[in-house]
Amino acid sequence: MGTLTGLFAPERVAVVGATDREGSVGRAILENLRSFDGDVVAVNPSRDEVLGEPCYDDLQGVPDPVDLAVVVVPAKYAIDVVRDAGEAGVTNVVVITAGFGETGGEGANREQELKAVAEEYDLNLVGPNCLGVMNTGVDMNATFGPEMALPGNISFMSQSGAFITAVLDWANDQNIGFKDVVSLGNKAVLDETDFVRSWGDDPDTDVVLGYLESIQDGREFIEAARDTTDDTPVVVVKSGRTDAGAKAASSHTGAIAGSEAAYEAGLEQAGVLRAESVQELFDSARALSGQPLPETDEVAVITNAGGPGVMATDAIGDSSLSLASFTEDTLDRLKAEMPDEANIYNPVDAIGDADIERFETAIDIVLDDPNVAAAVVVSAPTAVLDYGDLAEVVVDRQADHGKPLLTCLMGGERTGAAAETLREAGIPNYFDPARAVDSIDALARYRRIRDTDYEAATEFDVDREAAREVLEQAKVRDDNRLGVEAMELLDAYGIPTPEGAVVDSPAEAVQTAADIDGPVVMKIVSPDILHKSDIGGVKVGVETDDVYDAFEDLITRARNYQPDANILGVQVQEMVDLDEGTETIVGVNRDPQFGPLVLFGLGGIFVEVLEDTTLRVAPVSEPEAREMIDDIQAAPLLRGARGRTPADVDSVVETIQRLSQLVTDFPQILELDINPLVAGPDGVQAVDIRLTVDTEDL
Amino acid sequence: MGTLTGLFAPERVAVVGATDREGSVGRAILENLRSFDGDVVAVNPSRDEVLGEPCYDDLQGVPDPVDLAVVVVPAKYAIDVVRDAGEAGVTNVVVITAGFGETGGEGANREQELKAVAEEYDLNLVGPNCLGVMNTGVDMNATFGPEMALPGNISFMSQSGAFITAVLDWANDQNIGFKDVVSLGNKAVLDETDFVRSWGDDPDTDVVLGYLESIQDGREFIEAARDTTDDTPVVVVKSGRTDAGAKAASSHTGAIAGSEAAYEAGLEQAGVLRAESVQELFDSARALSGQPLPETDEVAVITNAGGPGVMATDAIGDSSLSLASFTEDTLDRLKAEMPDEANIYNPVDAIGDADIERFETAIDIVLDDPNVAAAVVVSAPTAVLDYGDLAEVVVDRQADHGKPLLTCLMGGERTGAAAETLREAGIPNYFDPARAVDSIDALARYRRIRDTDYEAATEFDVDREAAREVLEQAKVRDDNRLGVEAMELLDAYGIPTPEGAVVDSPAEAVQTAADIDGPVVMKIVSPDILHKSDIGGVKVGVETDDVYDAFEDLITRARNYQPDANILGVQVQEMVDLDEGTETIVGVNRDPQFGPLVLFGLGGIFVEVLEDTTLRVAPVSEPEAREMIDDIQAAPLLRGARGRTPADVDSVVETIQRLSQLVTDFPQILELDINPLVAGPDGVQAVDIRLTVDTEDL
Repeated sequence: MGTLTGLFAPERVAVVGATDREGSVGRAILENLRSFDGDVVAVNPSRDEVLGEPCYDDLQGVPDPVDLAVVVVPAKYAIDVVRDAGEAGVTNVVVITAGFGETGGEGANREQELKAVAEEYDLNLVGPNCLGVMNTGVDMNATFGPEMALPGNISFMSQSGAFITAVLDWANDQNIGFKDVVSLGNKAVLDETDFVRSWGDDPDTDVVLGYLESIQDGREFIEAARDTTDDTPVVVVKSGRTDAGAKAASSHTGAIAGSEAAYEAGLEQAGVLRAESVQELFDSARALSGQPLPETDEVAVITNAGGPGVMATDAIGDSSLSLASFTEDTLDRLKAEMPDEANIYNPVDAIGDADIERFETAIDIVLDDPNVAAAVVVSAPTAVLDYGDLAEVVVDRQADHGKPLLTCLMGGERTGAAAETLREAGIPNYFDPARAVDSIDALARYRRIRDTDYEAATEFDVDREAAREVLEQAKVRDDNRLGVEAMELLDAYGIPTPEGAVVDSPAEAVQTAADIDGPVVMKIVSPDILHKSDIGGVKVGVETDDVYDAFEDLITRARNYQPDANILGVQVQEMVDLDEGTETIVGVNRDPQFGPLVLFGLGGIFVEVLEDTTLRVAPVSEPEAREMIDDIQAAPLLRGARGRTPADVDSVVETIQRLSQLVTDFPQILELDINPLVAGPDGVQAVDIRLTVDTEDL
Repeated sequence: MGTLTGLFAPERVAVVGATDREGSVGRAILENLRSFDGDVVAVNPSRDEVLGEPCYDDLQGVPDPVDLAVVVVPAKYAIDVVRDAGEAGVTNVVVITAGFGETGGEGANREQELKAVAEEYDLNLVGPNCLGVMNTGVDMNATFGPEMALPGNISFMSQSGAFITAVLDWANDQNIGFKDVVSLGNKAVLDETDFVRSWGDDPDTDVVLGYLESIQDGREFIEAARDTTDDTPVVVVKSGRTDAGAKAASSHTGAIAGSEAAYEAGLEQAGVLRAESVQELFDSARALSGQPLPETDEVAVITNAGGPGVMATDAIGDSSLSLASFTEDTLDRLKAEMPDEANIYNPVDAIGDADIERFETAIDIVLDDPNVAAAVVVSAPTAVLDYGDLAEVVVDRQADHGKPLLTCLMGGERTGAAAETLREAGIPNYFDPARAVDSIDALARYRRIRDTDYEAATEFDVDREAAREVLEQAKVRDDNRLGVEAMELLDAYGIPTPEGAVVDSPAEAVQTAADIDGPVVMKIVSPDILHKSDIGGVKVGVETDDVYDAFEDLITRARNYQPDANILGVQVQEMVDLDEGTETIVGVNRDPQFGPLVLFGLGGIFVEVLEDTTLRVAPVSEPEAREMIDDIQAAPLLRGARGRTPADVDSVVETIQRLSQLVTDFPQILELDINPLVAGPDGVQAVDIRLTVDTEDL
């Protein structure tokens, strides 16, 4: 797939299904395209002329090269039209037509066919079932919506066409402009990943916004977003976050909803700023498109009103920001310039009789402070202060100092003109101090994302062949569940396991035990017996002399309990000192969108009762694995809380990475749990394993 | 103190410090009072006439009775003026003048004096250091602010005067009206509790709103709010929530900030809806003042746009509401009336070509459903739908069905007239579906509060005298810390303790041990030795035969470790089976505003590492104590998670209540911890205790 320039900034657009029938989509698009800087060509085999312009039978018949075809024909003709586009050398196609995957059944088949044709001709295809695309650079409104976007530096993609019409109506009123707008529709070919990547390369897009209900390929999206966020922030509402919402989204789009936990991990790893509501989406967008980034997280508040100053301070406490501590020099200057009753510490209260000069002085002194990276000006209306003046001062001071400066000039109508002045300078004005602070927070969070160097996952030296052999046991046995008999899988990937083996005779058991220092643990090994302890299938602290009898006893118990159980033998394993270590769990499962997800948590109640776990999309890099430890609330227990000997956290981090490599190397592993992975002061030991394998794929 | 009618609806108001000097506060108030329905009298000894009206020297000289005196004289004259008011029989006084507690030092003394005078004459005094009061019923604006409130059914108190001016400017623009408005100032006499109580009795106040930075008397506030919320919701922003905010609030008002944890518990127990931001405060107020309460938490969404419908559904998932399940009848009706492509399940998607008739039909069918208690109409702009029509339909349908109906008619300018129609009918319109859903959530939360019957705390039959004797040990010993030697305190209040005693000779130790079944635990008892285990000051599992020697060994170790330690003896105690039970902690400390706070959590890592604890303001009733168990994340461990024998939760609940009674009966107990309180299947045992006593007060 090439660049998307031809899609958003074509020279010639053809509307296939053009018509002058009142109220039709074809006519709406033609009318919307009237202001387009380039040429518009009508295509419709049943007309000679549309709205006074010549109409062609098909794309191959259009004499001049067409860069973009907008398709509004009935669904049954759409495939032929797209093929015609391919034959005519049109590389960009927007299929407005509905009646594809979203209707299920026949529509889904039609969508598969559409996809195949698009692939055959290597088309950049948007849709089907979408509102269209816009680009304000060439004044192109190739949608059937009622509004054209104002020009700006935000590019916006939405999986809901209706949301685009709602947003544009509102944004035009708020003077928020856009560069490109795309309605993603069913995402048969081009999806969020393509647009995130394309806008990352677009110098005219400063902020990427998305309303998404699903992500087609999670891992690819992560890679694309990481590249883009190097210099362009990406803010996304991913809806269907809640169970109810996910069900609604899936019935709306027909897409399979992935798990919210996977989206949460994946979007975080992608460096996407996730907004929870429409308001948060656009508040972030406004700040990111209009303000510079703060160099640190230290924020100052300057106000003429104590109460609202406290509210702003609370909002800072709620955010990832902190309240800046002023330098002595700043305090001296404020003391000299402010009245005695003023508060010169952050939040600065210039008090109720502050006029424009005092406000300006305070803003200047505060923004001069090297400890202050950003500030918010909070003002209540007073008789001695004109909001228009204050807005001009804020705009000037912001430009002068080059630090982000947000405002809450509180009030109603009296804020109107001031808000307009501020808006023109890229400064949104809010009544609620929390919204201004949250806007700075979005800037700071993006600065941290921009500064992140994503490390590649470490490639450990492993024995893939040995691992494959273990997995193939499942095929041989015709059982896709493996247990401790697969411990060698971990050995092959360098994950420490206690000494031991699965044996199938008492003599072998004795021999194995003899090689192990001290008493051993013995467990029956059978995929059919899940709760081994309950049937007496586990013996702890068996001395070498007792191993022979213990073997026979275990086998007997298993046979008595379940005569038809497939018994693979008995595991004889070194005793692991559970008192010295902390039980953890490292696991993997697969998400339809994001692929393998690695889970970490402390064992037992921490996972089962407190649900204190964390997830990452694999492959997991070293810093990501380390973050996983920090994520869990019970992490201090690993680090030596309450007088415990600290566990070797590095070994846990390495185990997470090695497991991530294993499941990345073998997509056949559907689920895997190491439980417990005992983390002690001298390293980790994987005591038990359980996994499910896709045997078809081996 | 009498009723506050004279304060908010006086017949005659005197302005003491009246002046016609331009820009003065005295003049501003006189001008603001021009529209007042009653009489206004000017008082100022240095003038004969103000703004053409006669001016009196003092309040006693005013011929007709004055109901309310507004005081704007310099601080040094304020006390005399208030005394004059008292002498003149003026019972309501608003002190605008600043220079009291908020300045510390001399000002704080002046405030004490003011308070004393107010008490002497039993005055309803507002302030000092405030903006004034308003009442729209009699068109009284007794403030020096620039705006008068519009009439309405919301009464509003604010600890920040500037916030009132900001809110009114904005609210007038938004057409939000008020009944009473009061600027609380320093709250020397009247505080939030008085206003909450007074507005609870006021038939014209439908919603009470507050911006508070502190609460003077937490327990009284809880009682007043519980009474008021029987029929009037109370919504409060308590700022200074975060550490930074609390510091800022305390420097702003000079008030001591209580702990956020206490406010959180106290406001919850009071039945107050706590808003975290200004936006949330007024969104809740609008819904509560304009809409009926939903009978259940089941909400429906009706939309013409899939995406925004999903957003609304996510917001429902985030709230305390749930997505209603329609009856079969509703589904049949929707199926018959909606097009095939529509989604007839909740959220109902009437799809993009829905005209006003289809919307009206859908709203009607959905609101007819007995499973639906409230609904939100979410609409994107389309060519076939006029928002004005939709607003009228919504207003009609809401009135007809009597269920709360909120709207998100999304868009910009095109929503203007529709939003106005909706607003007049008490229906706020938001762009963001989350705000509409959160508004319904506020209604539902208030319904639950209104329906709460607050039980009084149980009065257990206890031995107060015995408890007092134990506490008096601290006085005798001249040490305000008590340890296990105070276990009888718990016995006196019926909290089970293991058998045992503190003894001071080996022979007594043997005698005590002989009366106990099985081996015993022995511990050195000394207020000076905190970490007993570290010095070998604890012996577990001592057989009766070994008790004598153990006693001597413990004493020797203690003496060696700390020769000057005050050793009170040795505790000989029954062994408590820690494996059978779960260690919990029940504790108490005192908050300056809320008094005794009772804490509960599971012991060890759950408290120290996971901070999984919960608090209530004492006295704690039975249902509140039970809720405390549910509050903690680790509660399933008590209830028998992971194959454990369930603990006797009723005994834990009773212990919390008994402890609450103890600390309520004895305000001298400053801090107390029972750690651990072991909760087993057959009840609880308080194994250890530590407390701090105010010996002055005994």
